[in-house]
Amino acid sequence: MIHPTLLWCGESDGHLELIDQTLLPGNLTCIQVRTAEETWEAIKRLAVRGAPAIGVAGAYGVVLGAQQYREDDVGGFRIHMEKVCDYLASSRPTAVNLFWALKTMKQVLDDAQGTVGELRDALLSRARALEAEDRETCARMGKVGAALIEDGDVLLTHCNAGALATCGMGTALSVMYRAHGDGRDFQVFVDETRPLFQGARLTAWELKNAGIPATLICDNMAAHAMKCRGITRVFVGADRIAANGDAANKIGTYGLAVLARAHNIPFYVVAPRSTFDLTLADGSSIPIEEREAEEITHPLGQPVAPEGMPTWAPAFDVTPAALITGIVTEWGLISPVDAAGVQSMFS
Amino acid sequence: MIHPTLLWCGESDGHLELIDQTLLPGNLTCIQVRTAEETWEAIKRLAVRGAPAIGVAGAYGVVLGAQQYREDDVGGFRIHMEKVCDYLASSRPTAVNLFWALKTMKQVLDDAQGTVGELRDALLSRARALEAEDRETCARMGKVGAALIEDGDVLLTHCNAGALATCGMGTALSVMYRAHGDGRDFQVFVDETRPLFQGARLTAWELKNAGIPATLICDNMAAHAMKCRGITRVFVGADRIAANGDAANKIGTYGLAVLARAHNIPFYVVAPRSTFDLTLADGSSIPIEEREAEEITHPLGQPVAPEGMPTWAPAFDVTPAALITGIVTEWGLISPVDAAGVQSMFS
Repeated sequence: MIHPTLLWCGESDGHLELIDQTLLPGNLTCIQVRTAEETWEAIKRLAVRGAPAIGVAGAYGVVLGAQQYREDDVGGFRIHMEKVCDYLASSRPTAVNLFWALKTMKQVLDDAQGTVGELRDALLSRARALEAEDRETCARMGKVGAALIEDGDVLLTHCNAGALATCGMGTALSVMYRAHGDGRDFQVFVDETRPLFQGARLTAWELKNAGIPATLICDNMAAHAMKCRGITRVFVGADRIAANGDAANKIGTYGLAVLARAHNIPFYVVAPRSTFDLTLADGSSIPIEEREAEEITHPLGQPVAPEGMPTWAPAFDVTPAALITGIVTEWGLISPVDAAGVQSMFS
Repeated sequence: MIHPTLLWCGESDGHLELIDQTLLPGNLTCIQVRTAEETWEAIKRLAVRGAPAIGVAGAYGVVLGAQQYREDDVGGFRIHMEKVCDYLASSRPTAVNLFWALKTMKQVLDDAQGTVGELRDALLSRARALEAEDRETCARMGKVGAALIEDGDVLLTHCNAGALATCGMGTALSVMYRAHGDGRDFQVFVDETRPLFQGARLTAWELKNAGIPATLICDNMAAHAMKCRGITRVFVGADRIAANGDAANKIGTYGLAVLARAHNIPFYVVAPRSTFDLTLADGSSIPIEEREAEEITHPLGQPVAPEGMPTWAPAFDVTPAALITGIVTEWGLISPVDAAGVQSMFS
């Protein structure tokens, strides 16, 4: 990576710097984020995206929100911070890492004593710890997952579960980076991932920069690639995983899992424990974000459909645990994927 | 339809007029095609596309090629026309209707006697007959297929198998036009169909113009729509069908068929008998056209991927007969789809 996905500059009066991922791969541009509102906006418009990266960005957003409270009243500060956390949680509904990070930040407020300034320092310290933890978690997932890759493998991935989706080397792509670093010889097919082309814009860019042989395809070519190009394994990320292992991820993932099963291809989800939502028994109650029609009717801002054409624009879908061969976490591989397997990772 | 997909203007010294489908839905513009070379070009760059429409356009291209021979030597004319037919056949490799139409035109030359002028008239007369036959064939397929549609159906279609793909009302869409005309109450999900967006540009436009309730989705949303939006039937066209019923169609069709089977959704192919290639025992020997990388890396001409990113761009895939519930032809429904069923339609 030329620049980290997100970077905190300064101390508790500092600001957050983000790669504006909407401009990649054409422009590698960073934006300065100085308020909770700007953080919300950056998450909403996908300047920063990817479940783990959203979590850490949200945590830094809490720090920025803390800066915006100008008085010394600790009681008032706590009330203000409750609002900041609730506000940041409203940016995107599906990825649970955001809520997990915000909960962690609230815990700091619950646990810490002291002046407003001291609470601000405690919040920054926690956000930094989350960032460092995410980096370490990526490395550990990479190691666990790389053991699944063999010489000659032809992998398939969807959307971007890479360095741009995390503070480290990614979730699904971390596995590939590690296997590549270990000298494993494999290639990757990359789904472009409509409507926002995260595969074409971000994953293709990451793998090309890393020197990992990769081929870009349209999403609807995946089945044909499985049949005719010998795909051996699929690796994807996740935005929320229920207690039974059902996994929400970028729209199209569920279809890939069905196709992989039909072709007897192992299908792996790579996600840290912060992606699990054990309050949900299964995937049916994971909220699925719907996005604006323009993302479908105006690819890259250019009109393609007749004016006023009705659309349906779910941003995620849910893959049932039964279609997932294994879930790679920082603590090991869950396989088979079921409630007992998930539970064992948390006990 | 506001304008026919293709229109012959004048007599044997006339020319062909085509809707330039690359400009839809933003611009409804017609182009004049006056030579075999311009016909080849129009087919190659998809100004005219859709297996049946390509067949008729190819036949008129033969008439235009006949105009380009300026002498009275019948022997020389026949040699020239062989070359014209072979040349037109090189425009696109997958759809068999083109080869079928060119073979039909060659047959005219083999059968007819007379002067160069008389042969030209015979060629035009045959091309016009092919066009009229295609129109009638569409209507008959529509009638056969409409019987499969029930009130409350939620259909899914891929690419454009509509009026723009034929000289009549289409193949798969002809079924929908007829059912709509018969007062059946149903709605349609339309795959946008990357890389060239024929679903978003052409099918959405046709269905919207016809007042048939339709919703545009990205290709990778189809599985989620099957699970969550209650798709009841899938209808697609075909570019070539082998003797056992294996069907080549726009890339993405095979994946849809696998997904439909996994969700117990009937999957229908709608195609005239001219789409069958009984010289091929199965789909494995259907040539699959590969298109330029730019169609993937530059959607609507805008760059989306890193420069020089490797791609794979198959334009078609093959759906095995075992995944096809039925094939709707102008002579009736083939179901189950197997070699005996296909054979019965031709005997």
